[in-house]
Amino acid sequence: MIQVDGSPFAEHAITANSQPLDGVKLLIPVVPGTFYCAGANYRDHIVKRAAHHGREPKFASRPDIGYRANNALIADGENIVKPADAGEEFEYEGELVAVFGKTARKVSRDEALDCVFAWTIGNDVSERGWQSSDRANARAKNCDTFKPMEPWMMTNYDAANAHTIIRLNGEVTDDFKTANMIFSAVDYITEITKYATIHPGDVMWLGTDGMPRAIVPGDTVEVEITGLGVLCNPVVAEA
Amino acid sequence: MIQVDGSPFAEHAITANSQPLDGVKLLIPVVPGTFYCAGANYRDHIVKRAAHHGREPKFASRPDIGYRANNALIADGENIVKPADAGEEFEYEGELVAVFGKTARKVSRDEALDCVFAWTIGNDVSERGWQSSDRANARAKNCDTFKPMEPWMMTNYDAANAHTIIRLNGEVTDDFKTANMIFSAVDYITEITKYATIHPGDVMWLGTDGMPRAIVPGDTVEVEITGLGVLCNPVVAEA
Repeated sequence: MIQVDGSPFAEHAITANSQPLDGVKLLIPVVPGTFYCAGANYRDHIVKRAAHHGREPKFASRPDIGYRANNALIADGENIVKPADAGEEFEYEGELVAVFGKTARKVSRDEALDCVFAWTIGNDVSERGWQSSDRANARAKNCDTFKPMEPWMMTNYDAANAHTIIRLNGEVTDDFKTANMIFSAVDYITEITKYATIHPGDVMWLGTDGMPRAIVPGDTVEVEITGLGVLCNPVVAEA
Repeated sequence: MIQVDGSPFAEHAITANSQPLDGVKLLIPVVPGTFYCAGANYRDHIVKRAAHHGREPKFASRPDIGYRANNALIADGENIVKPADAGEEFEYEGELVAVFGKTARKVSRDEALDCVFAWTIGNDVSERGWQSSDRANARAKNCDTFKPMEPWMMTNYDAANAHTIIRLNGEVTDDFKTANMIFSAVDYITEITKYATIHPGDVMWLGTDGMPRAIVPGDTVEVEITGLGVLCNPVVAEA
């Protein structure tokens, strides 16, 4: 692993220093200025969650983005801490993540993917009981440690043809195509930038599919996205 | 105005350089790592908005925080840009803002105000039509320019006894006591830090009271909070 000085989004230089990969602690790839996150962005996830609650599925009519909070970010291998008062519906959500590399507003569909510097993996850990009661998912999705993030950022990546595979304690529990998104990265980028300027280092998480399982202390959850690596985090109880 | 080198939250040193105040451009005081914002935190605001919509007022049962986005921040004097497709219920919200100065988790009521480095003023500009339809108020409250922020941060400030006064084109349209909050800064800090670590530079906006008026291009809106100064921004139409 070769040390680079400077920001990946601006001036940087390759140094003469290198370290063996297993001798370094890998952190999250970026601390975003704005942390965008799509909710309910895969049809199957919405249909299954609605059925679970005995209600009609409701699909968004436009690429309507939300936010997550930086306090919740942790690195690959770090512990997801289940809060003492969290309920049983404490679940993973494996997600494709776009990292922006440009300052841009009112981006056309043709230019949208040029705004993405690289792609990575996130786990949008969620407490479903709180998700129903919180106004803005503050607790439900943003407790400390609820946002594990892969250390790698992949440039020149074909996100549209990727698969996401979730493994809980080694067993595959979900496997879905990123192509099954209701709104694509291009849809979100054009819609967000109608109203907001995106900046280098901002991230956009793109939602999950399927019916995530509950996780409990002692579990290990892995989110693999083909070509991007594997994000792996153990679950522990709050001390 | 004396130049200080370094961060207000860490090592800093007073330099020998000074500038006349009217010779410098004052920016926002901080770009937050996490941008907390209370919604519906004054009883009168909730009652009046509910009556306006012909529905029963609904009060939060706990200090349930939300988020705003950094792209929307602008400085005192800069233009609030009304988007071309925004509706008539485009409104100001004058708000007291706490700026955190400590890294803290599970803060007791006695320690809560020690986490506040200083206080300042924000204008939580909102498009009410979008507020009803957006999942997370992304457009409704976070378009570029929707979050004007006062340049000054006041340390050793008695926020509990302050008044907020809003002037629209010079006319006082709202005047309320910060003491009328449903949940105080102490309530929010203890609740947030049950689940999340706060960091120096994080901000917490504390909601607005009364029945904000619509603003239109050509208007000027001032948010004064006693002892903190006046945040003044003109409104313009999107070009």
